[in-house]
Amino acid sequence: MRLEIFPVEGVPEVRQGDDLAALLVAACPDLADGDVLVVTQKVVSKAEGAMRRIDPDDPRGHRSIVEEEAVRVVRRRGDLVIAETRHGFVCANAGVDLSNVDDGWAALLPEDSDRSARRIRDGIRARAGVEVAVIISDTFGRPWRRGLTDVAIGCAGIRAVVDLRGTEDSRGRELQVTEVCVVDELAGAAELVMGKAGGIAAAVVRGVDPAWLGRGEVRAEVVRAPAEDLFR
Amino acid sequence: MRLEIFPVEGVPEVRQGDDLAALLVAACPDLADGDVLVVTQKVVSKAEGAMRRIDPDDPRGHRSIVEEEAVRVVRRRGDLVIAETRHGFVCANAGVDLSNVDDGWAALLPEDSDRSARRIRDGIRARAGVEVAVIISDTFGRPWRRGLTDVAIGCAGIRAVVDLRGTEDSRGRELQVTEVCVVDELAGAAELVMGKAGGIAAAVVRGVDPAWLGRGEVRAEVVRAPAEDLFR
Repeated sequence: MRLEIFPVEGVPEVRQGDDLAALLVAACPDLADGDVLVVTQKVVSKAEGAMRRIDPDDPRGHRSIVEEEAVRVVRRRGDLVIAETRHGFVCANAGVDLSNVDDGWAALLPEDSDRSARRIRDGIRARAGVEVAVIISDTFGRPWRRGLTDVAIGCAGIRAVVDLRGTEDSRGRELQVTEVCVVDELAGAAELVMGKAGGIAAAVVRGVDPAWLGRGEVRAEVVRAPAEDLFR
Repeated sequence: MRLEIFPVEGVPEVRQGDDLAALLVAACPDLADGDVLVVTQKVVSKAEGAMRRIDPDDPRGHRSIVEEEAVRVVRRRGDLVIAETRHGFVCANAGVDLSNVDDGWAALLPEDSDRSARRIRDGIRARAGVEVAVIISDTFGRPWRRGLTDVAIGCAGIRAVVDLRGTEDSRGRELQVTEVCVVDELAGAAELVMGKAGGIAAAVVRGVDPAWLGRGEVRAEVVRAPAEDLFR
């Protein structure tokens, strides 16, 4: 297996109501069956209008929006809030983000990023006739380790977690727990070619194992049910 | 920026005392300056003899070794132990692993994976005359999200965390916090071409931003000091 990863350049500034699939197909005309297209959350939120105006009369500014988006505050230190969103994601500021958006506005997470991914995938199939997998990515921190990494908040056309349990290791013994979150690894890999300042909206990962393609969902496969999570 | 990722195939079974750099150069003769070579923890532990025999008379088996390797148990549920190691990593079974090792043996984490990475990098320079970056990877779980991902436990020749703070976003405003842990994203990307059952020891990521290359260390850059960690 050999992977190629390259950025999708030339996507114009995205505005509410834009047809993101059409913009991505125009910017990347050589999309091929089996490609994984990783799309950043920011452009999905903009296209879907998941934006909020920051009330200029509210002395708390965007922090009021953070409190509204949080269903549970996990940790708080000074201005930094780590919160769980209604989607079950645990991230800084409940996913509310001011970078690369117009002054006075905040970007929220898409309402349902798996659905957003399915829409983009369907739109690309309709416009370009190719079957791609789509991952919506966002930049999250994590406990115990410094530095942010991109993870998947939604996907379509690819299994989020590939279960290698029950396959044999190189000694012929059964592997015990090897459920790999391939969509998080793909989101992080795509981030490596996007950069933060360039405003690159998407990247293509070409060459992924065809066995991973198929029905998949971050919400059902990656978000931990509270009962099984050692950390809530 | 365009990345290529491919596995290093044909590394023979690694035993204590083996010259890992020589084995990797032999298996991947086209290594080039600027390549990032991601090497799995298992072969590093084997080459360095970071293995322990499981006492056959100990009814607790390998779990006794887990307790010895743990400096702090973070969570425990049944047989599952999430523990902090002396290196500051928080992971299942304190990094003690039975898969792909001989029966009756357990693999431990390398004593100092940054040093291991430096040794491999120096060995490759000496044998093949190329300047590569090296990342030692391992498979960790994480809170809140199902599925494992590969992360970096050591590195050499590449900055672990790339600080994009102070660069401008596409609107000319200063980005606030964008410290990206590129070595974790590279470790995860490499995992995508390795698979768990195949016994692939390493993968090459070609095409990374040359600005990231240079002095780097997981211990100093990625492991959070207890005082700054919201989760201890």
